[in-house]
Amino acid sequence: MSSFQPKNPNYRAIATDTFERQRAMRTLGISIARMEPGEIELAMGYAPEFTQQNGFVHAGIITAGLDNACGIAAFTLMPAGSDILTVEFKTNLLAPARGEHFVFRAAVVKPGRTLTICEGRAYAIHDGVETLIATMTGTLMALPRREASPTAERTQVPA
Amino acid sequence: MSSFQPKNPNYRAIATDTFERQRAMRTLGISIARMEPGEIELAMGYAPEFTQQNGFVHAGIITAGLDNACGIAAFTLMPAGSDILTVEFKTNLLAPARGEHFVFRAAVVKPGRTLTICEGRAYAIHDGVETLIATMTGTLMALPRREASPTAERTQVPA
Amino acid sequence: MSSFQPKNPNYRAIATDTFERQRAMRTLGISIARMEPGEIELAMGYAPEFTQQNGFVHAGIITAGLDNACGIAAFTLMPAGSDILTVEFKTNLLAPARGEHFVFRAAVVKPGRTLTICEGRAYAIHDGVETLIATMTGTLMALPRREASPTAERTQVPA
Amino acid sequence: MSSFQPKNPNYRAIATDTFERQRAMRTLGISIARMEPGEIELAMGYAPEFTQQNGFVHAGIITAGLDNACGIAAFTLMPAGSDILTVEFKTNLLAPARGEHFVFRAAVVKPGRTLTICEGRAYAIHDGVETLIATMTGTLMALPRREASPTAERTQVPA
Repeated sequence: MSSFQPKNPNYRAIATDTFERQRAMRTLGISIARMEPGEIELAMGYAPEFTQQNGFVHAGIITAGLDNACGIAAFTLMPAGSDILTVEFKTNLLAPARGEHFVFRAAVVKPGRTLTICEGRAYAIHDGVETLIATMTGTLMALPRREASPTAERTQVPA
Repeated sequence: MSSFQPKNPNYRAIATDTFERQRAMRTLGISIARMEPGEIELAMGYAPEFTQQNGFVHAGIITAGLDNACGIAAFTLMPAGSDILTVEFKTNLLAPARGEHFVFRAAVVKPGRTLTICEGRAYAIHDGVETLIATMTGTLMALPRREASPTAERTQVPA
Repeated sequence: MSSFQPKNPNYRAIATDTFERQRAMRTLGISIARMEPGEIELAMGYAPEFTQQNGFVHAGIITAGLDNACGIAAFTLMPAGSDILTVEFKTNLLAPARGEHFVFRAAVVKPGRTLTICEGRAYAIHDGVETLIATMTGTLMALPRREASPTAERTQVPA
Repeated sequence: MSSFQPKNPNYRAIATDTFERQRAMRTLGISIARMEPGEIELAMGYAPEFTQQNGFVHAGIITAGLDNACGIAAFTLMPAGSDILTVEFKTNLLAPARGEHFVFRAAVVKPGRTLTICEGRAYAIHDGVETLIATMTGTLMALPRREASPTAERTQVPA
């Protein structure tokens, strides 16, 4: 389906590993459902611990799913040895996050050497009906990974 | 400090109650540190369950804190009987969320009968030094609360 | 093509009239190329008066085209007697606005009684090749029109 | 007032020159009113050619002014030999652009080697009263200038 050519033939293993090293994803119960070059689908079940005052999933949690979807979609197109950070994103909340399951789909709009632009959409599945609940446009940045460096964290800043 | 006049003299109790009915806030360990009409400060401790691949707090969690800060700041200026929903927000991530404590400060830029615009800033406190790590601009919407209605949730959609 | 049902059977004439009453559109040389319920395409020729320091069209001008495209797309779905205002938008600039012609396409993502969310894309046509140069996500608000009122302008404020 | 140290001692002349080479700014009647390292104020008079259907200045024109304010504010902190491009921005429109004069103020929130984050505010002056009409948060990118290169334009793409 995807029209993108990954620069890193090992993109799938690397992107999966980066995803799984995020403890927040495990805590939120978010997992990878599908991955192609420049495209991703994440899945999440409903959990009452992450709700807002009306019992729906909190917008911040939906945003965390969308942000990860955009990040991993962008990451699949980055060269080996890259680290990734989110520069910024914008979310529109279209409907309450009411459902038993949620999916986060993201696709790269414009890949770049330094910056990659992605779009994501979040859906709630309630009684078998899928509803678009939120959109995201995000800017992701590739950074050379410096794992051995004691100052590696400094590369996490938009530089 | 605040220059806003709340329409609801009981704003503090109502806003606190709305905040506390969000289970996500309890799960994330976020609490209200300070509240004035149109202004809020939330506090959060570091928790390894909510980190990304470098051990810093996940951007989505920081966004959840900022979103709540903007929402409660806006809510303090809404009339009695209002419900609130987030229409949209935009976050810029300026530095890694590296610290032992985090604060989320938000203030109303423009209150309105239907829409209120807020700005928020997230700070990490690491070794006693406070660093600006993220900004948010958000649009919040006031809705008449219909607590007794079985279709109350439908009012949660941007209408 | 469009899956939306306009509430105003006269939507085309009204939307065209609203567009044409914007002197900025005439000054910028922007015209309507295609209109369907919830969808629009605007066209603009290159004009050296609206360029930035490298001779490409200024990002603000591209944004003006995208904003209008989103606004008119939303307006086609609003009931008779509505006025419209832009609440907010977010633009990502993907490539320089280099071309002889430009098109702005927008479509409604989520219509609403008060708020409508639209997405737009701007393309440059250079030597017959169309390139995506910018994206927009925007929030538009419907207001009851009060044309005869001396305080009509006050309804233009996000209220 | 500004707390930033410019890297380029000649920043004022270079930033002014970059501003003045934008024909769109001249066409729109926008000029520099004040410049400090990391801060700018631009001024614009009312012109009926740039209005929307209610006779107020078009949101896209206000955005063009804010975008330039953010760009020049960021540019003042970039090293000699830099070119600048806007990666993205987000604008909230708070009130109609109704006035005889308009000012666009922007300040750097976070400077960076590659990316700089700025915030801008637009004000209308009507009958001597200044009203906040719009806000912007923008991300600007520094690029090494390659003026002699025939492929210089390619550096204008978010890379």
